[in-house]
Amino acid sequence: MSTIKDVARRAGVSLGTASRVLSGSTSTSPESRAKVQTAAAELGYIAHGPARSLRRSRTEVLGLLVSDIRNPFFSELAHAAESEAMKRGYAVLLANADEDEVQADEYLRIFASQRVDGLLLSPQGPVTPRLAALLASRLPVVLLNRSVEGLDAPLYATDNAQGVGLVLDWLERRGHRDVAFVGGPVTISTGAERQAAYLAGREAHGISTDDAFVDAGDFQAEGATAAMIRILDRGVLPTAVFGANGPTTLGVLHGLRERLGAEAASRIEVISFDDLEWFEFASPPITSVRNDAAAIGRLGVRGLIDLIEGREAASARIAMSLVDRSLVDRSSASRPVS
Amino acid sequence: MSTIKDVARRAGVSLGTASRVLSGSTSTSPESRAKVQTAAAELGYIAHGPARSLRRSRTEVLGLLVSDIRNPFFSELAHAAESEAMKRGYAVLLANADEDEVQADEYLRIFASQRVDGLLLSPQGPVTPRLAALLASRLPVVLLNRSVEGLDAPLYATDNAQGVGLVLDWLERRGHRDVAFVGGPVTISTGAERQAAYLAGREAHGISTDDAFVDAGDFQAEGATAAMIRILDRGVLPTAVFGANGPTTLGVLHGLRERLGAEAASRIEVISFDDLEWFEFASPPITSVRNDAAAIGRLGVRGLIDLIEGREAASARIAMSLVDRSLVDRSSASRPVS
Repeated sequence: MSTIKDVARRAGVSLGTASRVLSGSTSTSPESRAKVQTAAAELGYIAHGPARSLRRSRTEVLGLLVSDIRNPFFSELAHAAESEAMKRGYAVLLANADEDEVQADEYLRIFASQRVDGLLLSPQGPVTPRLAALLASRLPVVLLNRSVEGLDAPLYATDNAQGVGLVLDWLERRGHRDVAFVGGPVTISTGAERQAAYLAGREAHGISTDDAFVDAGDFQAEGATAAMIRILDRGVLPTAVFGANGPTTLGVLHGLRERLGAEAASRIEVISFDDLEWFEFASPPITSVRNDAAAIGRLGVRGLIDLIEGREAASARIAMSLVDRSLVDRSSASRPVS
Repeated sequence: MSTIKDVARRAGVSLGTASRVLSGSTSTSPESRAKVQTAAAELGYIAHGPARSLRRSRTEVLGLLVSDIRNPFFSELAHAAESEAMKRGYAVLLANADEDEVQADEYLRIFASQRVDGLLLSPQGPVTPRLAALLASRLPVVLLNRSVEGLDAPLYATDNAQGVGLVLDWLERRGHRDVAFVGGPVTISTGAERQAAYLAGREAHGISTDDAFVDAGDFQAEGATAAMIRILDRGVLPTAVFGANGPTTLGVLHGLRERLGAEAASRIEVISFDDLEWFEFASPPITSVRNDAAAIGRLGVRGLIDLIEGREAASARIAMSLVDRSLVDRSSASRPVS
């Protein structure tokens, strides 16, 4: 293991001189430069200069920063992104922000110093100085599912308003009026867009506009359980609950069971933004709007490779589809037929 | 963006000479070495020499190669590994082998060229030349959950035999004789260990030793569905099925439903190696032996950091626990009380 100290010792110069030569400073004598460079070459020493230089030689590695690796939406997205990248001769290194802005920033710092050709990002919130610096370094970047104000990069995302529209239509068809909504953080674009579309559409779909039915978690199960319990503790009892992403829906099920017991909880219909692989096996089965994580991952990788290879890349919104798993005709069950 | 060509041009030497100098070859004249090194320093050119040299300066980044990022066992493990690493001042970059030996090898190549201080590996099979080379490079490595013959590295793993013992005891208590087993690849240590423990313990627990009830998938849902269907197509009808990991159990549910319909499928009890977060909401709820992915991730990171910082690290087997979600007393339901 050769360090800058070994180089200085072998070259017979001071540590400061070795450091100046190796960092490319010109305030060194030609003799010192030759000695230090020769010693460095003989020892196989490689300076860690500006990350940009490391990056500028292609590595065929892409970085992917996901919001929460335990959220199946993101593990599915990561899997599809990787398959697509592999097909095109690139590998993917993943990092997990864990829905935490500080941790996301730490990984941006790390990706900037690692040898990746470009980044796929699912950001946690507004543009941080770290993100701004990364963009300024001209590393190719695309955004996955979450947009950021003031950040001009191609975005591959779910059509949140269209997806929420499908949910509202389903709730109306099923005759629900007292509907609880457990959202995500409004500091994240997906949280804000889903909540805005739901609140704006409630009245037209015959759903109560009582805000006691509305609360938000952190897009993870634990926070959603707490939000669901806060709603129930206000003394309202919904006939249906809309969870704003997959982990939120799991948290909703926990919250309902904890406050009402398994029997009463199972009489409340649950609809989820994001389709999880086990919803069909739940009792009762959970209806969802399917968010095509795989398509977002694939399109994001194609867009990023376009940027890396000097082509243009255009944003895309991916449409959602309803997966209706409701078993009985609720309107005839709850309303007497005259 | 400076390339080796730019360095050669600036130094006034041939590309071959520049390449020999920058790769540390001594078959170059001192003059050429000085010219090339000076040009390289002035251009901020950084050679991509032996990965070892890059690695030997600490980056506080760990690499984690998981077998399948869509398997909740591994996303939970990755999450816990990362939390533990962050607490200790390290970040984690993830790669997904997708249960594929070739892809695993590709990521070993990439990690070897990236700047990581050590690797956490969940290997796909035997020692490949790539893995052997990586170990020979003396990069600190620990194994997670899967061992490899001839690979001498600390292993943090589930106690498979003990976990299968809990499954066998439960099957016996529930009075099951016709039990189907859907395993994983026996080329993977966990697949081999779980299958061996199950087959060896069947008879003593009153379970049929008819091998028509036994098949194996790929530890992913799709392969397990096919295996479950192969078993049913042999004309046997189990009263219980044991799935050898979480995705396998999901595949089992699909296979049962596809061949038998939802109603008949729901009368078959399912027990899973690995506890998934939704098992309690399934109908009927799924019993499991809980594989403590988080503990394995945490212990693995501690062990790896011990190695990186020059301390010893010892392997550990993590005990499993039964999560019994069976609803009714099967023996009294199926056997008439006299």
